[in-house]
Amino acid sequence: TSLSPRLPPSSPTLFEAKKHKGLSFEAIGKELGRDEVAIAALFYGQAMASPEDIKKLSKLLDIPVEQLESELAGFPDRGRILDMPPKDPTIYRLYEIVQNYGYAYKAVLNEKFGDGIMSAISFSTKVEKETDEKGDWAKITLRGKWLPYSRF
Amino acid sequence: TSLSPRLPPSSPTLFEAKKHKGLSFEAIGKELGRDEVAIAALFYGQAMASPEDIKKLSKLLDIPVEQLESELAGFPDRGRILDMPPKDPTIYRLYEIVQNYGYAYKAVLNEKFGDGIMSAISFSTKVEKETDEKGDWAKITLRGKWLPYSRF
Amino acid sequence: TSLSPRLPPSSPTLFEAKKHKGLSFEAIGKELGRDEVAIAALFYGQAMASPEDIKKLSKLLDIPVEQLESELAGFPDRGRILDMPPKDPTIYRLYEIVQNYGYAYKAVLNEKFGDGIMSAISFSTKVEKETDEKGDWAKITLRGKWLPYSRF
Amino acid sequence: TSLSPRLPPSSPTLFEAKKHKGLSFEAIGKELGRDEVAIAALFYGQAMASPEDIKKLSKLLDIPVEQLESELAGFPDRGRILDMPPKDPTIYRLYEIVQNYGYAYKAVLNEKFGDGIMSAISFSTKVEKETDEKGDWAKITLRGKWLPYSRF
Amino acid sequence: TSLSPRLPPSSPTLFEAKKHKGLSFEAIGKELGRDEVAIAALFYGQAMASPEDIKKLSKLLDIPVEQLESELAGFPDRGRILDMPPKDPTIYRLYEIVQNYGYAYKAVLNEKFGDGIMSAISFSTKVEKETDEKGDWAKITLRGKWLPYSRF
Amino acid sequence: TSLSPRLPPSSPTLFEAKKHKGLSFEAIGKELGRDEVAIAALFYGQAMASPEDIKKLSKLLDIPVEQLESELAGFPDRGRILDMPPKDPTIYRLYEIVQNYGYAYKAVLNEKFGDGIMSAISFSTKVEKETDEKGDWAKITLRGKWLPYSRF
Amino acid sequence: TSLSPRLPPSSPTLFEAKKHKGLSFEAIGKELGRDEVAIAALFYGQAMASPEDIKKLSKLLDIPVEQLESELAGFPDRGRILDMPPKDPTIYRLYEIVQNYGYAYKAVLNEKFGDGIMSAISFSTKVEKETDEKGDWAKITLRGKWLPYSRF
Amino acid sequence: TSLSPRLPPSSPTLFEAKKHKGLSFEAIGKELGRDEVAIAALFYGQAMASPEDIKKLSKLLDIPVEQLESELAGFPDRGRILDMPPKDPTIYRLYEIVQNYGYAYKAVLNEKFGDGIMSAISFSTKVEKETDEKGDWAKITLRGKWLPYSRF
Amino acid sequence: TSLSPRLPPSSPTLFEAKKHKGLSFEAIGKELGRDEVAIAALFYGQAMASPEDIKKLSKLLDIPVEQLESELAGFPDRGRILDMPPKDPTIYRLYEIVQNYGYAYKAVLNEKFGDGIMSAISFSTKVEKETDEKGDWAKITLRGKWLPYSRF
Amino acid sequence: TSLSPRLPPSSPTLFEAKKHKGLSFEAIGKELGRDEVAIAALFYGQAMASPEDIKKLSKLLDIPVEQLESELAGFPDRGRILDMPPKDPTIYRLYEIVQNYGYAYKAVLNEKFGDGIMSAISFSTKVEKETDEKGDWAKITLRGKWLPYSRF
Repeated sequence: TSLSPRLPPSSPTLFEAKKHKGLSFEAIGKELGRDEVAIAALFYGQAMASPEDIKKLSKLLDIPVEQLESELAGFPDRGRILDMPPKDPTIYRLYEIVQNYGYAYKAVLNEKFGDGIMSAISFSTKVEKETDEKGDWAKITLRGKWLPYSRF
Repeated sequence: TSLSPRLPPSSPTLFEAKKHKGLSFEAIGKELGRDEVAIAALFYGQAMASPEDIKKLSKLLDIPVEQLESELAGFPDRGRILDMPPKDPTIYRLYEIVQNYGYAYKAVLNEKFGDGIMSAISFSTKVEKETDEKGDWAKITLRGKWLPYSRF
Repeated sequence: TSLSPRLPPSSPTLFEAKKHKGLSFEAIGKELGRDEVAIAALFYGQAMASPEDIKKLSKLLDIPVEQLESELAGFPDRGRILDMPPKDPTIYRLYEIVQNYGYAYKAVLNEKFGDGIMSAISFSTKVEKETDEKGDWAKITLRGKWLPYSRF
Repeated sequence: TSLSPRLPPSSPTLFEAKKHKGLSFEAIGKELGRDEVAIAALFYGQAMASPEDIKKLSKLLDIPVEQLESELAGFPDRGRILDMPPKDPTIYRLYEIVQNYGYAYKAVLNEKFGDGIMSAISFSTKVEKETDEKGDWAKITLRGKWLPYSRF
Repeated sequence: TSLSPRLPPSSPTLFEAKKHKGLSFEAIGKELGRDEVAIAALFYGQAMASPEDIKKLSKLLDIPVEQLESELAGFPDRGRILDMPPKDPTIYRLYEIVQNYGYAYKAVLNEKFGDGIMSAISFSTKVEKETDEKGDWAKITLRGKWLPYSRF
Repeated sequence: TSLSPRLPPSSPTLFEAKKHKGLSFEAIGKELGRDEVAIAALFYGQAMASPEDIKKLSKLLDIPVEQLESELAGFPDRGRILDMPPKDPTIYRLYEIVQNYGYAYKAVLNEKFGDGIMSAISFSTKVEKETDEKGDWAKITLRGKWLPYSRF
Repeated sequence: TSLSPRLPPSSPTLFEAKKHKGLSFEAIGKELGRDEVAIAALFYGQAMASPEDIKKLSKLLDIPVEQLESELAGFPDRGRILDMPPKDPTIYRLYEIVQNYGYAYKAVLNEKFGDGIMSAISFSTKVEKETDEKGDWAKITLRGKWLPYSRF
Repeated sequence: TSLSPRLPPSSPTLFEAKKHKGLSFEAIGKELGRDEVAIAALFYGQAMASPEDIKKLSKLLDIPVEQLESELAGFPDRGRILDMPPKDPTIYRLYEIVQNYGYAYKAVLNEKFGDGIMSAISFSTKVEKETDEKGDWAKITLRGKWLPYSRF
Repeated sequence: TSLSPRLPPSSPTLFEAKKHKGLSFEAIGKELGRDEVAIAALFYGQAMASPEDIKKLSKLLDIPVEQLESELAGFPDRGRILDMPPKDPTIYRLYEIVQNYGYAYKAVLNEKFGDGIMSAISFSTKVEKETDEKGDWAKITLRGKWLPYSRF
Repeated sequence: TSLSPRLPPSSPTLFEAKKHKGLSFEAIGKELGRDEVAIAALFYGQAMASPEDIKKLSKLLDIPVEQLESELAGFPDRGRILDMPPKDPTIYRLYEIVQNYGYAYKAVLNEKFGDGIMSAISFSTKVEKETDEKGDWAKITLRGKWLPYSRF
C-alpha cells in the first residue's frame, strides 16, 4: 500500500500473516496478553515487541522466529508513518478533537492535577464498542501517569 | 494572555468572573448539568451555550445576562485558538498520542465497526483522576457515534 | 502516471481494464448500482468496494476475482492521493469555492440547522451536465446528513 | 470576533445591523433578489454589492447609504478570511470532500466534458434543507460554466 | 533528470525523440499549428494532445503512433511538476513578477473590466525575442478571456 | 482594508485621494508618463516614486508635497503585501499560469536565448483590453532584459 | 521588544523591575532557591511561580504582591514565545544540536536505558561557565527522569 | 528501515556489523577513543571518521578497510536524517526543551558571557545514567566554545 | 513601515534621526569606527551597540543618551525581522545565491579547510561598489573564522 | 549519497572520476579556466558546461566525451538539490548571514546604488583561505552586476 515506504520491514510480514491466518488484533492481543491497540501499533512499527511477544507471534502467525527476531530487532522509530494533519477522516476526527478541546483539556487537567502533563509514555489506551438504541458508539480511553513539573 | 487575540469577547468576561468567584469548571458544570470539559470549551469559545446555560452562568458568575447573551451570541468558530502542532507540552502529549497511535486506532476501529469514523460532533468526553500506589493517573474518555460511510 | 506511488495496487489494475474495455464510469456505475463519482473514487482507492461490487467488477472488467479481492482487501486509507492546495486547475476550482464561500456556507448552514456540521461520511454526491444557450454547465451536488453537536 | 482583523470594515456594520433587525440571510436575499449564500458572502466581504444592492441593504438594515457606499466601495479581496486547512469542523467537512473526492470529480468531469474546468467565477451555489425519517440533510449545489482549455 | 518522477511516461519519449531529431519547439509547433509554448507544455505533460497532434508528432519524431497514443492517453494532471516557490531562477523571476505586481494587476484589471478574472483556461501565451542596442529582451504575452463574476 | 497592516503609510493617503478625485490609474499614469500598472504598484508601495513623480502626484491628488515626500521616502520593501499562493482568484490565475507553464517557458526561453533569465528588474509590463465577438480579453505583456549567466 | 505580543503580562513587569534593581538571574535564583535558568523561564512565562516565589519576587523586585499574584496567576501556556526553527543564532545552535545528534542521542539512550524517553517535565537544567587556555566554554546540563514505555 | 533513503551507504554496513558483533556504542567508543554519542553520530553519517577511526572500525567490526574507506569517504552532509519537529517521542523531548527553555538559555548565556553563541561545532556532548531511589535519570551534557560576536 | 512590529523600539528612533541629519550609514560608520553594514544591522536591531557606540550615536544623531541607552539595552534578538524566503528582490538574490551555490561552497570549503564551518559570529562583512565599462558592480565580502569540528 | 535522487546523471559520473583521479576542484578549475566554485557547481548540476568544458573534462577525467556530452546536455534546472533552510551547518551559516544581515545589505546597497538589485546571474563568486595568528579564515566574495529598476 501507499504507506509501505514508511513502514519497517516487519509490517508487511505481520500484516500478510494476519490476513492469511484470519486473525483479529483482538485475538492476537489475547494470546500475547496485550491490548488490541498495542498489537496494531506493534504491526505498524509503533510499539516494541518483547522477546516473549516475538515467540508468541511466531507461533501464532507461523513466521520463523529468526525472521521475526531480525525484523523486530531494534527500538521503534515512532511517529513516522503519519503526516499531520491526518488526511484519512477516521484519524482526522481524533486530531480534530485535540484541536477543538486541547485548551479545555489542559484547563481541566491543570485544575484537577496542578502544573504538569498526562504522560503519553507511561500510558495505555483501549477501544470499546457500545451499542444503544441510537446505534453504535466508539469509546476510546486514554490513561496516562500524571507528571508534575519538577521545581528546579 | 497571549491567547487573547484569538479568543471571542466572552472569554475574558468568563475567565475573570470565574477567578473572582473562585469556582472550578467542575462546580460550574454541575450547576449547568454539563461536563467540566464542555464548560472549559465554552469558556474558550469552543462550545455553544444554550439560552438556559447563559441564564445560569449569568447568575452563578454575577454577569449581567444581557452582556452574556450578547457576547455568547452566534455560533462558535471552532478550532481557531490552537496552532498545530501544539507547543504546550500538556496539549502536545494528546497530539503525540494521535501521531503514534493514529493508524492503530483506525485499524482497530475498522476491524470492530467496519468502514466509517467515530464522530467528533455526536461526541462527548470527560477527564477523570485516578490514584494508586504509583501516583496519580489522568484518564480521558472519548465517546463518539460510529458513522458508517454511505454507499452511493 | 505521476500519481502512482500514492495509489493502492488496485488502481492500475482497474484503470487498465477500464481503458481496455472502453467503459465509462457511468456505465460501470450503472452495473454496480452506484454513482459514477463513487466508482471513480473506488478506482482511486478513496471508496470501499463491497464483496458484491468486487464480483461485478471482476465480471465487467475481466479481472480474476481473486486478484480483485486481494487488491481491494482492507479499508481505504483515504485522502492520501491529493496534496492541498490542489495544483491541477480542475480540482483547484473546488478548493477555491471552499476558500471563498467557506464562511458563507457555515453562516447559512448554522442559520438553517443550528450548531453542527454536514456529514462528509453519511454523504453522497453526483455530477450532472446541463446545457443551455450559453454553453455547458457542470452541476455538483453534495448531500450530507446534518449532525448537531451533542450537548455534554 | 477573532475573524475581525481580516474582515473589511463593512462586515461589522452589516452583521450588527442584521442582528439588530433580526433578519435571516434568506430574508435579506429575497429582498435583494440574490441567494442567501451570496448574501452571506457579501457580509464577509467575499462578494460584490451592486449599487442597487447597497440601496436595498441601506433601507432594509437602516444603515445610512453613504456609509454603506463608502464601506462597500472597491472590489473584494477574496479568500483572505479563511486559512486552509479550515479549522472549524463545519468548513473542514467541505475541504475533506475536496480532498477525498477531488480526483474522482476530475475524472468524471473530464469524461463528461473533456479537458477543462468547472468555473468558480461564472458560478452559483445554494444550500437546501431536506428532511426524511432519518433526520435532516444539507444539500449544497455547485453550478459552474464548463470552460474547455483553449488550443493554442 | 531530477524531474523524472513527476513527469508522465510520454515526457522522456518525446524529449528523447526531439533531441535525436534536433528539432526545436518552434519547428514542432509550426508542424502542429500550435505555439511553441503549448508544445513545450505538452512535452512536460501540462497540455493535451489532440488525435491529430499525436499523428503529426508520431510522424515528425518517428515514434510509433500506438505508443504515443497510449502514453498520451488520458487528461493531463496539471501543475504537478513544479514546486512553489520555484527554485530555478528562470522560473522564479515569473513568480516574483506575480508576487510584486499581483495587486497592481488586480487593481488595473478591476478598473478596466470590473469584478472578475482573466481566465487561465480560455487562455493563450507566447514568448518573443526582441533585440535592440541594449541587448536581447524576452517578451511574454498572456492573453485570457475576461470572466465577470456571476450575480447569484 | 485587511491589507492595511502590510501597506506603507503612503498607501491609504494615495488611495483616499484617488477615490476622492475620481481618477483612474490610467489617467494618473498619463500625467506622470508612466504605465498604469506602475502607478498601481506605486500606490501599493511596490514601486519607487521619483522626486518628479511626487511633485506631480501632489498636484494631481491635492496632497501636500511635504507629506508625500515624507511618506514616499526610502526604498520600497517589495513583495510584502502578497502571501503566496495568492488567495484572491484574480491574482491566483497569474500564479496558476506560472505553475502550469513554468517549465514550458523555461524550455522555450532557453531554446531561444541560451542559459539565463528574463530580468524582473530591467523589466516593464502592461495590461490591455481587447474585445471580439466572443467577449472581452485581458492581455498582459511582460518584457524583460535577457541576462545570460556569467561564465566564471 | 518584538517578543511582547507573545509574552504574558507578567514579563514586562518582571524584566523592568530586574533591570531597575540591577539584579542577575543568578542572584534572583539564589534568593528563591531556584536555578537561574528556571528564573529566566519564569520571567518569560515558561515556568510556574509558587506562592512563596511570588512573595520573594515581590520583595526582591519591589513589585506589589497583589500585582504579581494577579499577573502570575494561572498555569503557564508554554512554548508560545519561540517559533521553530529559531532565528536567533544563540538559540539556533541548540536546535542544530538536536537536528544533528537527535538520532545519536536516541540510539545511545535506548542502548543504555531500553525503550523510553528522557522526561522534559520531571526535568532540570543548568548552565555553567568554564574557562581554560583556549577561552570560555558554555556547559549546559539536561537531566530528566527516564520513563520506560508502559506495556499494555 | 524507513530512515534508509536518507542514510549514507556506510550506515547499513556499520549497523549490520555492530549487530552481528553484539557491540555497544560505548564499547566501540572506548576502542576508538571517542564518546559513544560521537560513535552513534558517525554510524548515522552525522560525524566524520578519521583514517585511524576507519582502521579501528574495520578491525573491530570485521569490515574490509577498503569498503569502509570508500563508504566513509567525503565530508558528512549533516542534518538530513531528521525532519523537524521530530516525530519520535525520544527525540521530540529534546526539541521541546529547546522550545520551552530557548529564550531562558539565551538570557542566562548572555548574562554570563555577553553577546555571542555557544558553538555547536567546537563542541562535545555525552549521555550519562544516574540512578537514585526515584528511579533512573538521563543526564545529557552539552559543552561548546563560547564565541563572542566580532565587532566590525 | 510594514516592518515596524518586528523592530525594536530603537529602530524608529535611529532611522528618524538619521533621516533628519541626512547622514549615510557610511558616514555614521566612520564616526563609530565600524563598517556601514554593521551600522545598518545595528539600526535594524541585528547587532549590538557598545557603550562607546551609544555615546557617539547620541552625539552624532542628537538623541538623548539616556533614551538611546534604554532603547539599546539588552542583547539583540537576531533574525526576527526577515521571513524566509525573502520576498524583496534585493534580499532574495542573496538567498538565491545560497540556494544555487550552497553545496558548491561546502564542497570547496571542505576541500580547502577540512570538516568544519565558516563562522557567522566571528565574522565580518562589507559591501563595495565597483564600476567598469559595463556598469556598476556590487561586491559583498563575507569573512569568517574557520571552525573545525571538535573530535570527541 | 542521500542527495542522489536530486542530482542529474552527470553528477555521479563526475564525482566518481574526480575521486579516482584525485583531483581538486581548484586543479580542475585551472584546467578549464574557471573558478573552483563554478566547477563544484557544475559537478552538482548547478552550472552549465560549455562544449569546450566538456572536452576538457572528458580528457582530464577520462570520461568518454559522448557520455559527458549526453549527460551534460540541456540547461541546468538550478536550485533543486538544496532544501531551505539548509540543514547542514556549513551551508546554514551562509543562510544565517542572509537572515541576519539581509535588511542591512539592502539598506547599504540602496544607499550606495539606488533602487535595484545585485544580480545573481551576471555574477561571480570565489572562496579564499586566509591565515593569521588567530587561525584560518574563510573569505567568500560575491560580485554581481547592479541592475537598477526600470522606470515604466
